[in-house]
Amino acid sequence: MEVSQRGQKIQPSPIRKLKPYADDAIKKGIHVYFINIGQPDIPTPQPVMEAFHNYREEVLSYGPAQGSLELRQAVAEYFQSYGIPLTPENIIITIGGSEAIHFSFSAIADPGQEIVIPEPFYTNYNGYATFADVKIVPLTLRVDDGFRLPSQDEIEARIAPQTRALLLCSPNNPTGTVYTPEEIERVVTVVKKHDLFLIGDEVYKEFVYDGGTHKSILEFDEIKDRVIVVDSISKRFSCCGARIGAVVTRNEEVYQAVLKFAQARLCPPSVEQEAALAAYRMGMEYFEPVREEYQKRRDILYEGLKDIPGIVIQKPQGAFYIIVKLPIKDAEHFVLWMLTDFQLDKETVMVAPAQGFYCSLGKGKDEVRIAYVLKEKDLRRAIVVFKAGLEKYLSLFP
Amino acid sequence: MEVSQRGQKIQPSPIRKLKPYADDAIKKGIHVYFINIGQPDIPTPQPVMEAFHNYREEVLSYGPAQGSLELRQAVAEYFQSYGIPLTPENIIITIGGSEAIHFSFSAIADPGQEIVIPEPFYTNYNGYATFADVKIVPLTLRVDDGFRLPSQDEIEARIAPQTRALLLCSPNNPTGTVYTPEEIERVVTVVKKHDLFLIGDEVYKEFVYDGGTHKSILEFDEIKDRVIVVDSISKRFSCCGARIGAVVTRNEEVYQAVLKFAQARLCPPSVEQEAALAAYRMGMEYFEPVREEYQKRRDILYEGLKDIPGIVIQKPQGAFYIIVKLPIKDAEHFVLWMLTDFQLDKETVMVAPAQGFYCSLGKGKDEVRIAYVLKEKDLRRAIVVFKAGLEKYLSLFP
Repeated sequence: MEVSQRGQKIQPSPIRKLKPYADDAIKKGIHVYFINIGQPDIPTPQPVMEAFHNYREEVLSYGPAQGSLELRQAVAEYFQSYGIPLTPENIIITIGGSEAIHFSFSAIADPGQEIVIPEPFYTNYNGYATFADVKIVPLTLRVDDGFRLPSQDEIEARIAPQTRALLLCSPNNPTGTVYTPEEIERVVTVVKKHDLFLIGDEVYKEFVYDGGTHKSILEFDEIKDRVIVVDSISKRFSCCGARIGAVVTRNEEVYQAVLKFAQARLCPPSVEQEAALAAYRMGMEYFEPVREEYQKRRDILYEGLKDIPGIVIQKPQGAFYIIVKLPIKDAEHFVLWMLTDFQLDKETVMVAPAQGFYCSLGKGKDEVRIAYVLKEKDLRRAIVVFKAGLEKYLSLFP
Repeated sequence: MEVSQRGQKIQPSPIRKLKPYADDAIKKGIHVYFINIGQPDIPTPQPVMEAFHNYREEVLSYGPAQGSLELRQAVAEYFQSYGIPLTPENIIITIGGSEAIHFSFSAIADPGQEIVIPEPFYTNYNGYATFADVKIVPLTLRVDDGFRLPSQDEIEARIAPQTRALLLCSPNNPTGTVYTPEEIERVVTVVKKHDLFLIGDEVYKEFVYDGGTHKSILEFDEIKDRVIVVDSISKRFSCCGARIGAVVTRNEEVYQAVLKFAQARLCPPSVEQEAALAAYRMGMEYFEPVREEYQKRRDILYEGLKDIPGIVIQKPQGAFYIIVKLPIKDAEHFVLWMLTDFQLDKETVMVAPAQGFYCSLGKGKDEVRIAYVLKEKDLRRAIVVFKAGLEKYLSLFP
């Protein structure tokens, strides 16, 4: 009477496993700056909160499996405002971006088949690959060149007969890289040539800095049928706890498969869909101050870190993450040490060891991911504490 | 570039597939009494609604993967009030009972392994079995004896080396049967003898009529480690749209496996957990009038149907469903005909063909499931319309 193999093998969240040590530090009276996870501190927009306050149904009943028509219409209009002509029939509301990933993987790949993903990548792709019993094949990128996509040949080298799809996350979690139209074009070529699907995770698309723009894979008409985009309101509208996302596809067969998966879990939460409706109707002007705030923080973080001796760092173009290489041997040991053995005036910092974002064994051991999710004052102080900690650590473990 | 095999094979919801015909009937001005699905009309309790109205966090942020400690505590206390000593460490909050089923299946069985379930059964078990790539082996029950569990020998005949668990749903959806302590004891014996897990779906446990009581599989100490109970607030508190459920287990390895699955999807919806907290804190007195209401409806339905010539019917003891055998050849054809070709003073009735609740091919073709989820007046009228429709149908298709 043992648990299943998959129950034993599924990777525990690498971000959450160090959490108990942070809790212990807090118990000892130490203030921890959490820049390890992507939990934004931007207030949830008032209309979203009001949707909860104004909910007045007599019975909190099931809704349609694919989400309410009103919400799907609002999501379609949101994409239309980017010049992407979608209809509610292209959209299935999911329980978070997480479920959108799970459904997408399951709809296009069978157990044992492969999806190629540039690494480092969002760790939860792993969890859902395990759920769906599909294999992630990493296309390893490098911190030295800011995690740019490699040549077409290098991408094609990862494709095998059992490959079903490529996945592109842009703006990227965890690297902050925004792919250029040329980089995406390269992937589009590969996708067409090898008859693959292309999954896009574009949930950070409003967070592109320095006046840059985001190019969606939905804009490439030549692969219209091959594209599945996973969407989420979590980061875009500071609504992580609402668990509302979407699968976006113009491929009718994919839509029908995802719809059947959606029927099996009945429906997404009803009140949260009202909240999401309010969010999608905020209009584009909502993003301007949020984007400015994140850009400011990115600049503070980048300027604060770039002169650390031995650091390898490139300025990220989007999202709210950066991966840097440090002159250390074992980032996990360093992060742990910061929580258990270090303090500066009763303060310390928690960052994320980058190893968990790679699936190639041994990669990213000397890299950490930092999320700039703190207000300016806190972020500035966190950088001071981080640098002091790193200096001390290097003196102890040179 | 085709969708996956599983995307093609997963069963579309047999309940939802007839829905478009009901929509067409409504468009033609016909009133449809929906007694095909388990969407209760009992108002959601006011404290649950108020939890939404009173939510006042600045940021709607991620919560713990296993659900908030407060809610897990409340769930534990709810079980304690039934004399079942649980702690928050035995409980993982899930996104509906649906996810609880998915996680339970995935935690105890690997692809290709088997779970034995008495049929007819809740159709969504099928969806999650497909998701988890496990095989459901049906233990076929019979309408003639009110879907009682068979002898130990007959149960054991379904067990194979690849069997990992049995699943018992009591009070049962779709049959309304409540298993006696002796019937459960029989299953407990088999579970011990064959070293299996026992999954319990007891979400209707407050809906047991005629002064009867529900025996939980959590009460059998001898299989304490083998038991996983899936819970949900959907029917219990008329909160289907909240999507809050739970996995309950005292097996630490199962708990850890489910926790890792839970981490992969980050967390259950935050505001809904506040609503669920209010629900679990309602206290046992909440259920008395609800139970009385359902018992009254059951009596109305049973009395209204039992004298139909050729019907096979047993009085259900719990939940709010009944499966009856009708003197017809094809229940799906009958249900469809009721929607497309029949009306009595501009009214018709939608019931669920029972075939979708069986996984043995050809079973249940002459049975329908009826959910008594309408108020007395509507239910009485629905019975009149249903009987008139059946009579007409039999005259056309004898």
